[in-house]
Amino acid sequence: MGKSLSVSPLAPAQFPDLPVIEGVRFATTAAGVKYQGRTDVMLALLAPGSAVAGSFTRSATRAAPVLDCQAKISGVSDEGAAILVNSGNANAFTGKGGVAAVEAITAAVAKACDVPQSRVFTSSTGVIGEPLPYERITAVLGDLTAKLDAGSIAEAAKAIMTTDTFPKGASASVEVDGKTVKIAGIAKGSGMIAPDMATMLVYIFTDAQIEQRALQNIVSIHTDGTFNCITVDSDTSTSDSLIMAATGASGVDVTESEAFSDALHTLMLDLAHQVVRDGEGATKFVEIAVTGAANDADAKTHAMSIANSPLIKTAIAGQDPNWGRVVMAIGKSGAAADRDRLSIRFGDIEVAKDGWRSPSYSEEAAAAHMKGENIVIGVELGLGEGTATVWTCDLTHGYIEINADYRS
Amino acid sequence: MGKSLSVSPLAPAQFPDLPVIEGVRFATTAAGVKYQGRTDVMLALLAPGSAVAGSFTRSATRAAPVLDCQAKISGVSDEGAAILVNSGNANAFTGKGGVAAVEAITAAVAKACDVPQSRVFTSSTGVIGEPLPYERITAVLGDLTAKLDAGSIAEAAKAIMTTDTFPKGASASVEVDGKTVKIAGIAKGSGMIAPDMATMLVYIFTDAQIEQRALQNIVSIHTDGTFNCITVDSDTSTSDSLIMAATGASGVDVTESEAFSDALHTLMLDLAHQVVRDGEGATKFVEIAVTGAANDADAKTHAMSIANSPLIKTAIAGQDPNWGRVVMAIGKSGAAADRDRLSIRFGDIEVAKDGWRSPSYSEEAAAAHMKGENIVIGVELGLGEGTATVWTCDLTHGYIEINADYRS
Repeated sequence: MGKSLSVSPLAPAQFPDLPVIEGVRFATTAAGVKYQGRTDVMLALLAPGSAVAGSFTRSATRAAPVLDCQAKISGVSDEGAAILVNSGNANAFTGKGGVAAVEAITAAVAKACDVPQSRVFTSSTGVIGEPLPYERITAVLGDLTAKLDAGSIAEAAKAIMTTDTFPKGASASVEVDGKTVKIAGIAKGSGMIAPDMATMLVYIFTDAQIEQRALQNIVSIHTDGTFNCITVDSDTSTSDSLIMAATGASGVDVTESEAFSDALHTLMLDLAHQVVRDGEGATKFVEIAVTGAANDADAKTHAMSIANSPLIKTAIAGQDPNWGRVVMAIGKSGAAADRDRLSIRFGDIEVAKDGWRSPSYSEEAAAAHMKGENIVIGVELGLGEGTATVWTCDLTHGYIEINADYRS
Repeated sequence: MGKSLSVSPLAPAQFPDLPVIEGVRFATTAAGVKYQGRTDVMLALLAPGSAVAGSFTRSATRAAPVLDCQAKISGVSDEGAAILVNSGNANAFTGKGGVAAVEAITAAVAKACDVPQSRVFTSSTGVIGEPLPYERITAVLGDLTAKLDAGSIAEAAKAIMTTDTFPKGASASVEVDGKTVKIAGIAKGSGMIAPDMATMLVYIFTDAQIEQRALQNIVSIHTDGTFNCITVDSDTSTSDSLIMAATGASGVDVTESEAFSDALHTLMLDLAHQVVRDGEGATKFVEIAVTGAANDADAKTHAMSIANSPLIKTAIAGQDPNWGRVVMAIGKSGAAADRDRLSIRFGDIEVAKDGWRSPSYSEEAAAAHMKGENIVIGVELGLGEGTATVWTCDLTHGYIEINADYRS
């Protein structure tokens, strides 16, 4: 952290007031893993009976903590569980020493928290390729367990930050069978992106009651439609992790609840959008909505091709309604497209229709839309019923500044 | 062209002295398609008996001139042929009007040059989505045919430029059966990239004798190893075109000549590297050499994942030996990799070995390599015999400047 970054102009006005989730307690402390003068370790302790599920990066060079979580995540247990996260060092590409560090931490957490080691999940985010000084983490476990508090989730959101310019949180409250179920989530990340410091980590807690397999199913479905639909710079971290825990403390079974599923989707989308809004150097929040594709997979391929195009992202940064670059991105994506059926809109302004500039095209109107903070690019392919919506941000000088000399 | 760009710091010292290729004459003029005060149309007239071959963009939203060239390129004829190229307007995404413009231009060129319309190849590069004012081009054909000159290839290289900061040319001379065969080529492009102004166009001429099918075969093979191995920003133009003509004037049959094939490969690689050296905002020329992949296709997938990573390209711009980002790009590429067999070098400096930071790693030595103008990233996967080498440039503030307000 050679420099302090100013808060993203797209940040929410304030961190939300997150509800207490019965059955979860949090603690944070400054272990000095790398950063000085701030918290860098967070512990979440889950009551016995909690179901835990997760989604993880598909990278072939996954970090040791991710591999450990994946091996454990589908386990079912009536005992408690713990999540321990450090920032400052990703423990990625650290060979056998990295595996040993995870083993040492999970063993120590299990002992300190009186939970099985198979129920201790860890994440590490920060520089890669440097040995994780895990003894700095195990040394503070006594401090952490002494501080555990149901009301400390906002502190947890801060302890996991790296290049983030603001902490990210969201909550929901759902009525199921006349009773209230609560969900609270926190996230960190300034992109999909970056093994160095911008890994995406997400932790969601609910007092709902639901079995592990059902929870895993709902988490996987909603991850696809939320966190897997955002991109900052097309780069994928070696450490991306999402862990969700349901404590069951409310006594309300949500296995069949559409309201719960919908609320969770909305919360996850909110957190995903916050990650985009903290995209490195971002000044615009961009939605890409593709319709009329041959199928949903093609629609997402086109949408991601547009969202990841440096030429489109720089045009948005320059407030230029450069729809020709959208045509280019559709052409290069590899998914089916027919140039002469293609229509494109910026906001509500149709800029291209049936393979040519729209007859009603107004450069002024399109340029006016581009001046806003929220940009919408709509593409209708005219081929079928496939749809997809993804979110990204613009590519600015700020991105270059942050990434051209991050480690130095 | 709202701004004039300074010449790339990676540009060659001067445009090379290109030989006259017997059987080809060139002419250029200022038709005022879009630009003022510079040439923007070039005509190359090929003697009867010339073989013509080509390679074209795979974009699904290809421009009208590309589709017309592809329909004609495999034709065989004893009559002459013509290539007409305009800059300033790409005639892309222009609907039926775009097709009509190609028809009008090719018909007029056929008449003016006395060649069959099926032997007139056109390329257009510039803004997309605007009707091509083709009558400005057909109006200058008399001027062009009057000016045709075997020595004007350097002028041709200038007339096809758009955002290019220098004209690009290369030549070769090969001894075949005791006789000399000459090759001369020109190119434009500041990336793979950009339908607006940075399309890649390449024209190569030789006095060698070779049949169309054999010429097409050799062109396709060498395109794969040269122009398809460069990337500036991962974006693909709707208009990329390479056309090669063999006039046969030397009387030397090169069908079986390895020396000719090798010389052509070298020339094409030279032009491809010049395109990278003119990459928008480039300050570093970067070679990515991948070895030890499961197969060549996997090697290229990894190499392109590295070459297209914004995080790696910005690290190079910042002269940061950030090998962790290389690990990330390998992990996300989708091709086979084993984290614990992976080795990475920057120049001759081994930075990572067998899944961890190299025991001999010296940040100072790696940083010293990154300060140079030519950067080499070597990756050994330890899995098999697959290899690939690709070339790219860094991602700098200059790229953002050029692309954030190009049209304005």
